[in-house]
Amino acid sequence: MNPSVNNLKVGIVGATGAVGQELIRLLHERKFPLQELVLLASARSVGKKVSWEGKTWIIDEAKPEAFDDLDLAIFSASGSISSKLAPEAVNRGCIVVDNSSAFRMDPKVPLVVPEINAHVLRNEKPGIVANPNCSTAVALMGLFPLHQAFGLKRFFVSTYQAVSGTGAAAIRELEAQTRALMAGEDYAPEVYPYQIAFNLLPHVDSFLDDGYTREEMKMLNEGRKILEHPSLEVSCTCVRVPVLRAHSMSINAEFDSPVSVSIAREAIEGFSGSELKDDPSNLVYPMPIDYSEKVSCGIGRIRKDTALNNGLALWVVGDQLWKGAALNAVQISEVLLEYGHL
Amino acid sequence: MNPSVNNLKVGIVGATGAVGQELIRLLHERKFPLQELVLLASARSVGKKVSWEGKTWIIDEAKPEAFDDLDLAIFSASGSISSKLAPEAVNRGCIVVDNSSAFRMDPKVPLVVPEINAHVLRNEKPGIVANPNCSTAVALMGLFPLHQAFGLKRFFVSTYQAVSGTGAAAIRELEAQTRALMAGEDYAPEVYPYQIAFNLLPHVDSFLDDGYTREEMKMLNEGRKILEHPSLEVSCTCVRVPVLRAHSMSINAEFDSPVSVSIAREAIEGFSGSELKDDPSNLVYPMPIDYSEKVSCGIGRIRKDTALNNGLALWVVGDQLWKGAALNAVQISEVLLEYGHL
Repeated sequence: MNPSVNNLKVGIVGATGAVGQELIRLLHERKFPLQELVLLASARSVGKKVSWEGKTWIIDEAKPEAFDDLDLAIFSASGSISSKLAPEAVNRGCIVVDNSSAFRMDPKVPLVVPEINAHVLRNEKPGIVANPNCSTAVALMGLFPLHQAFGLKRFFVSTYQAVSGTGAAAIRELEAQTRALMAGEDYAPEVYPYQIAFNLLPHVDSFLDDGYTREEMKMLNEGRKILEHPSLEVSCTCVRVPVLRAHSMSINAEFDSPVSVSIAREAIEGFSGSELKDDPSNLVYPMPIDYSEKVSCGIGRIRKDTALNNGLALWVVGDQLWKGAALNAVQISEVLLEYGHL
Repeated sequence: MNPSVNNLKVGIVGATGAVGQELIRLLHERKFPLQELVLLASARSVGKKVSWEGKTWIIDEAKPEAFDDLDLAIFSASGSISSKLAPEAVNRGCIVVDNSSAFRMDPKVPLVVPEINAHVLRNEKPGIVANPNCSTAVALMGLFPLHQAFGLKRFFVSTYQAVSGTGAAAIRELEAQTRALMAGEDYAPEVYPYQIAFNLLPHVDSFLDDGYTREEMKMLNEGRKILEHPSLEVSCTCVRVPVLRAHSMSINAEFDSPVSVSIAREAIEGFSGSELKDDPSNLVYPMPIDYSEKVSCGIGRIRKDTALNNGLALWVVGDQLWKGAALNAVQISEVLLEYGHL
């Protein structure tokens, strides 16, 4: 990061959401050189106050002119808002880091997990940079070091996704529904189609005609793009679980080269952003309560896969709101600074 | 079932546990021809009263002589109790249906899911019949009809296992811990090594030297035995989730023959004990809250696997206390009656 840069005007679109709140916190805690932070949201939130650590902002309307003076805007709203406003922001000279799925598969838009492919941002000043889907980002934080060591060929992943991925209202619903059920009361689901407390929904994002969900296909499509590996095969099943904010993944991965658990562990230990948490006989393995509000993803349960040649089974956990969303977006912003695009 | 048989003396070993309670209920509700039901447990439970629907039993001690007059004993206690007492019961002319893992892999002991391999009980009166591990039984209720249709070659399974699999104390721990956390209080884990409420533990049963758990290897070893398929390849990851009593499984299965989703659905619809719950665009998929206290297992999310030739992905849910334990044991007992061994 260029220490002489300290006068950036940054906007957050969708500042009232669960990810927006974490963006405010992380931009400050990681000392991003803010001259001014502008919080933007839809018209119905205009005028609302948002506070963090004694500072208060008043929400402005997210409209094209709002980007006139901004250097950087981080979008964490719907795909349709990003589709409409991100190009307007870019036209006004603002770089956009977009959390939505709107531009991720656009061949002209870089899709970035900084520890994996920051290099795609090195040469040219980008307009929009896409932030990957949360479950994809977390899974790849376990798989990328193994891909470097052994050459990833194919993987099967079953997710255990926290309610934070659906947003702040879903966090409130899990808590309120749990409280009601423990008191023997009913609590009709509003955010989810069914009860989420003490239950599982094999349903994240909307269903496609072939029976997969959009979320499941993101793992395949975004995985190929981020790893620059168009022949990668991926099979994904996404499941919502009654956990508040860290996503977990059970992965069976097949590689081109023979695998070794000890080399796999070394590869993870040498990879920035992930930490090895793998000593099961001493009850050391990653769990979502330990990876909430944590920068690193945790990788454990690494073992030779019993049904694959050159295969490893592993368990990966990462904070959905951080590495799956806000942290990765701030890390992209830090790379943009480092490369002199801001 | 032979309607003339109505004078059976049946014992339950481990009657005070979560499975024991369900055995009492299911033997009555399914009108098993009981002349007498004897409840047995360890010395420390002797004299305790157990009630169900207005009937009360006093616990007797599980000791060799307790089996003298019994026709059938269903064991739902530890493997060490089964190892010690099941042979004593058999020596006294009593057939044993054993829920523990003690005899499952003994080549002389049949390991039975009645809908799949009741035929192994047809000819000879058995001594001990083993009931499979709960996650294995539920997974095979989804896989067996597909095996018949396409020839199962290999499968990958990630489990989402309810706390009931650990026993009655674990159900109480999840409820009490959840209540404490919602009230902002601490609740130190006693049954599990870590908090289970709003968390996941990639840890079911004890760890082996190769990094797998015993539970994970049961899926491979018991799956091969029940399906009579010694070359079947299985990779299993078992995860405990904050759900009360139904187990769920995400499965990626590879077959010898080309697969079709419509034939797969027909195969499941034609298979007794499982029901098709697979219309995702109308939000129809199996969930653990719908498969608690339910005889059938639910199969849904069936789709062509995107990373396997001849592969299907699916989601299977079944009651851990019923199909995973007590119901399967009672169904085995019903087969023993039907085949004239009782």
